[in-house]
Amino acid sequence: MVRVVVIGGGAAGASAAARARRLDPNAEVILIERGSMITHAPCGMPYAIGGIVRSHEELQTYTPEEFEKERNIKVLIRTEVVDIDAEKKTVTVRRGGAQETIIWDKLVIATGAKPLVPRIAGVELKGILTMRHPDEVPTLKGHLEKAKTVAVVGGGYIGVEMAEVLLELGKKVLLFEQFDQVLPGALDADVAALVADEMRTKGVELHLGEKVVEFRGAEHVNKVVTEKGEYQVDEVVLAVGVRPDVDLAVRAGAKLGETGAVYVNEYMETTVPDVYAAGDVAEKVHRVTGKRVWIPLAPTANKEGQVAGGNAVRGRVLKFPGVVGTAVTKFYNLYIARTGLSEKEANALGLKAQSALIKARTKAHYMPGAETVHVKLIAEESTGRLLGGQIVGKSSVVAAYADILAVAVQSGYAVSDLFFSDIGYMPDTAPVWHPLIVAARVLSRGKL
Amino acid sequence: MVRVVVIGGGAAGASAAARARRLDPNAEVILIERGSMITHAPCGMPYAIGGIVRSHEELQTYTPEEFEKERNIKVLIRTEVVDIDAEKKTVTVRRGGAQETIIWDKLVIATGAKPLVPRIAGVELKGILTMRHPDEVPTLKGHLEKAKTVAVVGGGYIGVEMAEVLLELGKKVLLFEQFDQVLPGALDADVAALVADEMRTKGVELHLGEKVVEFRGAEHVNKVVTEKGEYQVDEVVLAVGVRPDVDLAVRAGAKLGETGAVYVNEYMETTVPDVYAAGDVAEKVHRVTGKRVWIPLAPTANKEGQVAGGNAVRGRVLKFPGVVGTAVTKFYNLYIARTGLSEKEANALGLKAQSALIKARTKAHYMPGAETVHVKLIAEESTGRLLGGQIVGKSSVVAAYADILAVAVQSGYAVSDLFFSDIGYMPDTAPVWHPLIVAARVLSRGKL
Repeated sequence: MVRVVVIGGGAAGASAAARARRLDPNAEVILIERGSMITHAPCGMPYAIGGIVRSHEELQTYTPEEFEKERNIKVLIRTEVVDIDAEKKTVTVRRGGAQETIIWDKLVIATGAKPLVPRIAGVELKGILTMRHPDEVPTLKGHLEKAKTVAVVGGGYIGVEMAEVLLELGKKVLLFEQFDQVLPGALDADVAALVADEMRTKGVELHLGEKVVEFRGAEHVNKVVTEKGEYQVDEVVLAVGVRPDVDLAVRAGAKLGETGAVYVNEYMETTVPDVYAAGDVAEKVHRVTGKRVWIPLAPTANKEGQVAGGNAVRGRVLKFPGVVGTAVTKFYNLYIARTGLSEKEANALGLKAQSALIKARTKAHYMPGAETVHVKLIAEESTGRLLGGQIVGKSSVVAAYADILAVAVQSGYAVSDLFFSDIGYMPDTAPVWHPLIVAARVLSRGKL
Repeated sequence: MVRVVVIGGGAAGASAAARARRLDPNAEVILIERGSMITHAPCGMPYAIGGIVRSHEELQTYTPEEFEKERNIKVLIRTEVVDIDAEKKTVTVRRGGAQETIIWDKLVIATGAKPLVPRIAGVELKGILTMRHPDEVPTLKGHLEKAKTVAVVGGGYIGVEMAEVLLELGKKVLLFEQFDQVLPGALDADVAALVADEMRTKGVELHLGEKVVEFRGAEHVNKVVTEKGEYQVDEVVLAVGVRPDVDLAVRAGAKLGETGAVYVNEYMETTVPDVYAAGDVAEKVHRVTGKRVWIPLAPTANKEGQVAGGNAVRGRVLKFPGVVGTAVTKFYNLYIARTGLSEKEANALGLKAQSALIKARTKAHYMPGAETVHVKLIAEESTGRLLGGQIVGKSSVVAAYADILAVAVQSGYAVSDLFFSDIGYMPDTAPVWHPLIVAARVLSRGKL
């Protein structure tokens, strides 16, 4: 009987445990989680802080009890792994003050990512908040309750989502981003400008191209200092990014890749025999470039967990083919989605790219209720290969446009292949010339 | 200087004319339209009849004047082509009582489709309405105005859409479909049952598996007779299907394909030199089976028109790769979309298919505003190749799900390729396990 130990009860870990159990009913499967929840969704944290989701406990799909009873997976919550010995095949865990050693045959490391805390003076002050785990929500809500002015440091996904939530909670919101655009890791500047416009319209005081250099306060932060000025604030949400939580993987002897995340092959095997890594802790392959990247997102984590868990009990039955970087966020009813390479990413990789940015409507021109969408497509100039796309608009269909593009991009489509794709139409769901088809035509520069 | 004559001002014809003009600024381009509008959208007719679209004149993208002035295309409206001589390269037209002959170098036939009128006793009675061209809308509205009870004969796209419109106009609606499901050409019975449930709930009196055999009345229809009963009605909407309007193409000597539509190659060339056909009049190639099919839809017509128009002036610069049969309709807020082969189509073709039908939600479980969607996926059992999908749900995102699948199907994806597709996620736009990914997993029968 094989014993599979999984470290981390989030998307990747829970998927790995569930998959191992499903494929091998005789396996002993142990899921170890430091916090109190498993199958939790950190992506929902902003909405739990904002109150759209009533309780952070809703941010779990299964309780530990359900996982134990319905799936026959031993779940150890509030249990911290303090060491891994890959030769003896053991993990040392600490729970309730006591320490114990657990033997494994196969180990899946799914320790996720943790917030990046920049080395800035005053960063250790109280009132500087980071977000990682849904069980922190009550504490975060407590901190934010009395604040009138909140600084959000970082204009990435979490920064943008938190800006909405904080405005809705009645706060004055200052958002600081060192790059001169919001969502610098996701969008090109032209598309990001559309998001920034909406953020300003809704009342966010945007400070772009303004790097925070210091936090000040006695015990509790009360001032954000940037290269350009000083700002009175009551609380700070620090959202400058995340990094893979590789400490345990390193202890296990696993090699890290060039991105700093755990190196894995397509079977989610690390360089250590019988040790797998999955989810945000692991490096991924980008399907457009073939290069190794670190794009930590939940759907990828789920699938990688599934691959790792399946292979742990069945041996190389599944391969994870990589990602194209599809991601979605929103600011109020402005939805923002992207996939593949941005134009600046393409250029940074030395790919000569060309792009088209068009404005279109989500329905036939004569139907009521249409919204405007902006679609940017990026292609390689020499081959016409579609590299990526970005879409912004006040309709959640924007996310699905990115999904359509994602499948096209990962399939190696040329712009003309997208143009001739059999995308559907009815007056209420799309114009007869679908925005993506129009964008492909414009990008073809007269060839289509 | 080349002269291009295009017959038919709808989607395909207008696209062909516009494309020819764009690619050859010196060409003389003449667009001949029997009705009074060009670039018209018959798909919007139900909504113009229902009043959601205020005037049928909104169902055109450009007026003939705009096309003439802005695009330098000669537009002859209310002009009927009565003959084509492909050897002399002429068309004979009748306009305003006079007849004249126009010489062409290249001819594009885009005469579209016309409603099928079954040979049923009494079908010639007044009050039996068919729908083809937006300029018929005022007449149709007039007919329906005083009717209390309306029979819709045919449960296809137009029948379903008209049932909603007629209910909204306060009519009692009886819908007769000879097959024992609605949308028999589009959906499998299991998915169609979900649509039928909603139609009954909203008040449509559905008569499935009930063939109409006679219409009765003095001058005006007042009774629908089926194999099973007789029904008092005030008006009848006849929507039993359409067929390609090939009369002129046949006069030109063009070969018809096995489907009865005009045979064209990938350049949209007919078998007659310098004569192209595009849109609903033309046969298409199905990208899943490689077989010739006739699936008359507007987005295809637009692209085929573009290919025909471009090739007419530039010679084989574009190829149309075919279709996968993506189509969308709605009944109130229940959206219905499909792509590829249905399970019954696959079986009829001798492909051994397997399928999965799942129920899922459009958002993360903890987010408000989620809707239920039903996703059916169909794959070839021996190879795992994805053949098609059908989606039904009270969210317009259903249409985009079909688009994602369409790109996957036309790319020759296996079920596992879909499962590993990098489809995006945020709590407000999708569950972390996207409904399409879940359906792929279920369809894999434990392999994923």
